[in-house]
Amino acid sequence: MTGPTLSTWHVSGMTCGHCVASVTEELLDIPEVSAVDVTLESGEVVVTSTAPVEPAAIEAAVTEAGYALAR
Amino acid sequence: MTGPTLSTWHVSGMTCGHCVASVTEELLDIPEVSAVDVTLESGEVVVTSTAPVEPAAIEAAVTEAGYALAR
Repeated sequence: MTGPTLSTWHVSGMTCGHCVASVTEELLDIPEVSAVDVTLESGEVVVTSTAPVEPAAIEAAVTEAGYALAR
Repeated sequence: MTGPTLSTWHVSGMTCGHCVASVTEELLDIPEVSAVDVTLESGEVVVTSTAPVEPAAIEAAVTEAGYALAR
């Protein structure tokens, strides 16, 4: 029995709640992703998924929202 | 024959293009308003309308969008 997978990412360029909403929406479009928790001030994004998600898929979603993964 | 009425306002708190879009949308909901031009950096908002708009209506729209008129 496996539980949800959590991964933490850092996204740069978010300045307001609209930015948070955009990133959250794009990440939730990934089928495995069940929850997204963004902290605007730090840019920290915690992604909960039913299975591990490829980093490239996370990056594509963040880019689609108009932001960048911080390295 | 009268032309369009232009008025200039200053809005505080806008940080990104989403903020600009929110303010623009709310102002365009005012029936007399035909165009809105926002400069994000300065917070300057130029409203074009078919007739003069009450300042209270402008303020209400900006507040509805989640921002404030700067005095």
